[in-house]
Amino acid sequence: MIARLLRMSALLLALAPVAVNADTLPLPENLVSASSAEGEALLVGADAREAYFTLVSNFLTQKTQSYCGVASMVMVFNSMQLPAPEVPEYAPFKTFTQDNVLDARTEAILPRETILQQGITLDQIGGLLSVQPVDVAVRHASDSTLDAFRSEAEAYLAKPRHFVLVNYLRKTIGQQTGGHFSPLAAYDRETDRFMILDVARYKYPPVWVKAAELFAAMNTKDSDNADRSRGYVLVAPKSSPN
Amino acid sequence: MIARLLRMSALLLALAPVAVNADTLPLPENLVSASSAEGEALLVGADAREAYFTLVSNFLTQKTQSYCGVASMVMVFNSMQLPAPEVPEYAPFKTFTQDNVLDARTEAILPRETILQQGITLDQIGGLLSVQPVDVAVRHASDSTLDAFRSEAEAYLAKPRHFVLVNYLRKTIGQQTGGHFSPLAAYDRETDRFMILDVARYKYPPVWVKAAELFAAMNTKDSDNADRSRGYVLVAPKSSPN
Repeated sequence: MIARLLRMSALLLALAPVAVNADTLPLPENLVSASSAEGEALLVGADAREAYFTLVSNFLTQKTQSYCGVASMVMVFNSMQLPAPEVPEYAPFKTFTQDNVLDARTEAILPRETILQQGITLDQIGGLLSVQPVDVAVRHASDSTLDAFRSEAEAYLAKPRHFVLVNYLRKTIGQQTGGHFSPLAAYDRETDRFMILDVARYKYPPVWVKAAELFAAMNTKDSDNADRSRGYVLVAPKSSPN
Repeated sequence: MIARLLRMSALLLALAPVAVNADTLPLPENLVSASSAEGEALLVGADAREAYFTLVSNFLTQKTQSYCGVASMVMVFNSMQLPAPEVPEYAPFKTFTQDNVLDARTEAILPRETILQQGITLDQIGGLLSVQPVDVAVRHASDSTLDAFRSEAEAYLAKPRHFVLVNYLRKTIGQQTGGHFSPLAAYDRETDRFMILDVARYKYPPVWVKAAELFAAMNTKDSDNADRSRGYVLVAPKSSPN
């Protein structure tokens, strides 16, 4: 099935003009664009992709260059279908946005001004996420292993309303350059690759990355977090009412 | 393959808590949510879905309740990877947004203030799209047929950088209520359904709709356009340089 799709897609690509986006950066060879023929085949054959379909329906571009964590939270909250704040422009409909997801409760944890200036650390996003009715588990890569990450992340990506945010150093996977947050959307066992829905959509497309490379990129020191390592966050519906 | 996926997904759904979004409207029975088990299987088995993968990577929520046409244009221009305007927040990266897609050229065709107050008609969006280096064909449903629409739309959805915008009356397909724009993303021949990536994401999820129902919803009179019918727009890369 995948081989046939790949052959068909390769044929289509050979016949079609090559689309080059002048505005996003080229991908290094270790990453597979999710909208390439190879990336599409990976999704079709993926072993865990429950997260994908709700996340793409809520896919966002981070509002500023320091809002990757904010955009990632909004995608997860909307995908989990949590009770959302009112939005005057959309009344009577409600939804999370990169503006209303930051409120008095998050301000007490991490001021909006700080997020605008320096973004969010792994431990901080754990606190910000916990403002909503969700169960949150923060995992520093240095306290975890590749096998534990792969196994936990795959299980979450296969379950409705379960999500994984990754906090990684871009340059370790060959991208430009700093610390970044985005949600994972799917996992393919055969190639051992995860799909990242990169919220810096002006900069990079969604990509499939090898689990080991992603783990190495999470297992990097964050100077904004007292040199603790980056890592991942597991988000699930609250198991019991408050 | 599809049958197996459906069985697997049905099993998963039976085991999982049912996710009900309190904030979007329920879908009528004639529409299939793209993130339901049935909707996922439709995508996997779809005959034309080249448009899907680039469009979901650029999926947006319309900025105001009259900006469905604006959001649809931005999705198509970013998906076509056209040279984009600068965005101060993203410098040095560039991208189309619902703000910068409206400029002095579009203002001369249709003022932003008019769009904010009453949205865009089918003929107006033809003019607005043509500001960019693309070939645009506007089709009023009353001048076309279901067969012609199905055949043109399927061909476009199967080709890289080719896109279809639909302008339809929501209530004809059982949704609330008025005229609307959104891009099509895929077509499944077996069920004769198109996927609409609905840009009012606070209101409805992406759906699979029967071709005949969508055509009927396009074949409705638009009082903002001298009672001409709604319809669809085909957008492709410009065939020759200006």
